[in-house]
Amino acid sequence: MGANASPARGMRDLLPREVELRDAVTATILDCYQRYGFTRIETPALERIELLTSGEGGENEKMIYKVLKRGEKLNLTAPNLREDDLVDLGLRYDLTAPLARYYANNVAKLPSPFKVIQVGPVWRAERPQAGRFRQFTQCDIDIIGEDSELAEIELVSATAEAITALGFTGFTVRINDRQILYGLAESCGFAAEDFGSVFITLDKLDKVGLDGVRAELESKDFAAGPVQRMMGALTPFAMDRGDFASTRAALPEGIPNEPLNRLERIINTVGSQAGGRFTLVFDPTLVRGMGYYTGNIFEIEAPGYSGSIAGGGRYDKLIGKLLGRDVPASGFSIGFERLMQILEQRGYTTPTSAQKLAFLYDADADDLAAVLAASAALREQGYVVNMLPRAKKMRRQLDELSGQGYTLMALYRAGETLPEIKPLEGH
Amino acid sequence: MGANASPARGMRDLLPREVELRDAVTATILDCYQRYGFTRIETPALERIELLTSGEGGENEKMIYKVLKRGEKLNLTAPNLREDDLVDLGLRYDLTAPLARYYANNVAKLPSPFKVIQVGPVWRAERPQAGRFRQFTQCDIDIIGEDSELAEIELVSATAEAITALGFTGFTVRINDRQILYGLAESCGFAAEDFGSVFITLDKLDKVGLDGVRAELESKDFAAGPVQRMMGALTPFAMDRGDFASTRAALPEGIPNEPLNRLERIINTVGSQAGGRFTLVFDPTLVRGMGYYTGNIFEIEAPGYSGSIAGGGRYDKLIGKLLGRDVPASGFSIGFERLMQILEQRGYTTPTSAQKLAFLYDADADDLAAVLAASAALREQGYVVNMLPRAKKMRRQLDELSGQGYTLMALYRAGETLPEIKPLEGH
Repeated sequence: MGANASPARGMRDLLPREVELRDAVTATILDCYQRYGFTRIETPALERIELLTSGEGGENEKMIYKVLKRGEKLNLTAPNLREDDLVDLGLRYDLTAPLARYYANNVAKLPSPFKVIQVGPVWRAERPQAGRFRQFTQCDIDIIGEDSELAEIELVSATAEAITALGFTGFTVRINDRQILYGLAESCGFAAEDFGSVFITLDKLDKVGLDGVRAELESKDFAAGPVQRMMGALTPFAMDRGDFASTRAALPEGIPNEPLNRLERIINTVGSQAGGRFTLVFDPTLVRGMGYYTGNIFEIEAPGYSGSIAGGGRYDKLIGKLLGRDVPASGFSIGFERLMQILEQRGYTTPTSAQKLAFLYDADADDLAAVLAASAALREQGYVVNMLPRAKKMRRQLDELSGQGYTLMALYRAGETLPEIKPLEGH
Repeated sequence: MGANASPARGMRDLLPREVELRDAVTATILDCYQRYGFTRIETPALERIELLTSGEGGENEKMIYKVLKRGEKLNLTAPNLREDDLVDLGLRYDLTAPLARYYANNVAKLPSPFKVIQVGPVWRAERPQAGRFRQFTQCDIDIIGEDSELAEIELVSATAEAITALGFTGFTVRINDRQILYGLAESCGFAAEDFGSVFITLDKLDKVGLDGVRAELESKDFAAGPVQRMMGALTPFAMDRGDFASTRAALPEGIPNEPLNRLERIINTVGSQAGGRFTLVFDPTLVRGMGYYTGNIFEIEAPGYSGSIAGGGRYDKLIGKLLGRDVPASGFSIGFERLMQILEQRGYTTPTSAQKLAFLYDADADDLAAVLAASAALREQGYVVNMLPRAKKMRRQLDELSGQGYTLMALYRAGETLPEIKPLEGH
């Protein structure tokens, strides 16, 4: 018997078929974003631990993989050792914290507005569960340096177009603004220092319903008046989200106009391009977890699938913490793993490119230089050519190749320049 | 002033232009490998620390980024803490150790021979130096399950073709076999337990020359006879490496025939396809560092650039340690970072794809829905369309866009369906 060959707990190996599908989906998304003038960057997987533990990452900061100091910096004999003494680096838990650092570090070399794509792995030491892994891919676009809703219009357009290019129709883009949430909580009479806690509960509305939200707010010992008023404010939106005007009309008094007008402009402008392929909805109950959002927030849901497949928002105060002056920024992140799960369930297949040809030769008898020349010539003609020594059990070999997506075969015979190409099926 | 925004020590941020070039080079290499029937897989960046510290990784094992245990598993109050008590995971230092684990873990789902591509980052906590980073990309192909030199013929062909596709000509593929090295050391009279130490010195021949090798062998206190015989054996190869037959003839007695015949077949077969674009050379002094090689070893050097741009070899005993039975395997790895350095020095540019159009509009005045519709229509026509609010200093804005590779511009005017497209140059 061999040693334990499984991946580390919560990690996974990707099979060729899976990588092929992921690469095709990534290429489709990238092509769409690049046509909008977004450009790709990369940041290192490891960041200084201080950057990752500044508090902006919320719950994600509890799930950081931390890296042990190396060499003389590591002192294991110091008294009262704390975790902080032992580590100096961590694996990124998202792509936004590193982007803020990247922008502050490279601002002099970057255009403004900076339209940026990031695709790459992030790591979180979450409790492993079915379909969730501790290394997963995120796929973000961000616009840095544009403070108007032009940023959101472009982010939502491009993301909706990428999702559409992958075959989704009838999906919903939910939009809200943190300022509207603040106005809502304020108008109900909650104290500003309780807003965070109130929103954490509100965020669960879709899962636990109105009664669940009421129970949780009550369990948090808020005064009865604000809770009662919040429940009254939420009731029109809990079941049905209508058009922008009716939702706006159903809001309580005291919500500021500016974020509402901004929202209306985003919804109308992007909606004019949707052509029935997707719907934009103003959802005053949308919260989104991350602490750093300051304005618009948005999410995409696909009909028939739980959870969101993309989410994002505006974070005008994050870059300032590193750069020393605020720079407006907004981003939209595709949940790549959830997207892949749904695409696999829907039987999404890779758009066919080159035809796959199994090229079999007799390793003992054939002139290898001639075999190589023949396969190179077929490759030149555009085929994927998998050169393989012919197995004794050739029928089984061909069955396996068929399972790998090969549709053509050629059996090279000594002295031939080019072998005959036949359909693989039926052999 | 802001906080420290630089990447962690030894790490780097990649700018849009750099990522564009890297993506184009990766696509060229992948396209070539995929046409040979290789398929891509992915393994997680983190592996169990036991896998990474089994001894097969040689010097690389000293440079592992180790990850702190999490939750209850981490006990900082235990007496006599050792590093091993604190860590359970590490970042991979290459793609071969993870591949061996992957193959052992997934063998039932994989074809045989398994022709596999891996492209991805690896991490080594090396001393930072100019042009070397602690996270870098490797780009490997491997054939698992083929014990004959057919594997090497295909690996060398495909890698040489990928390098050629990137514009290299006149490069050299140096080939040797570990069995020939063993025969050489044995015929000179070194003891088997000293072979490793002798080869470490031999590996420096290109850097330190014959005299340097002699000095180092003498400093290692080997007997004078074997050192003298080794120097005599090396002399014909130190300056000039001729054709296979003359190199074979110049070898001392006692080198086994089987690896020599194998080498001859690889060189002749691949050489028949080289068509003058590259040269294959039998170099009996080629060592390659990694401890796990068991047979053929190879390296590619580009004329005018120091160091190798690709290297690899056969490792028939590595998978067996995890699977419990030996499986023959051979691989060729492109040193992606060295390749990129050379390509940048040579002024390599991304093959032009879509034309880049700067689409300027007046954010205050224009009907945004119409702007969005016009830019979508131009995207449909195949342009990359970067929608931007027109800056007050438009000349400067256009200069910046020109610097980002935009060659066309369109100034959207209210009421237009499609704006006029003009060359950006000269504005």
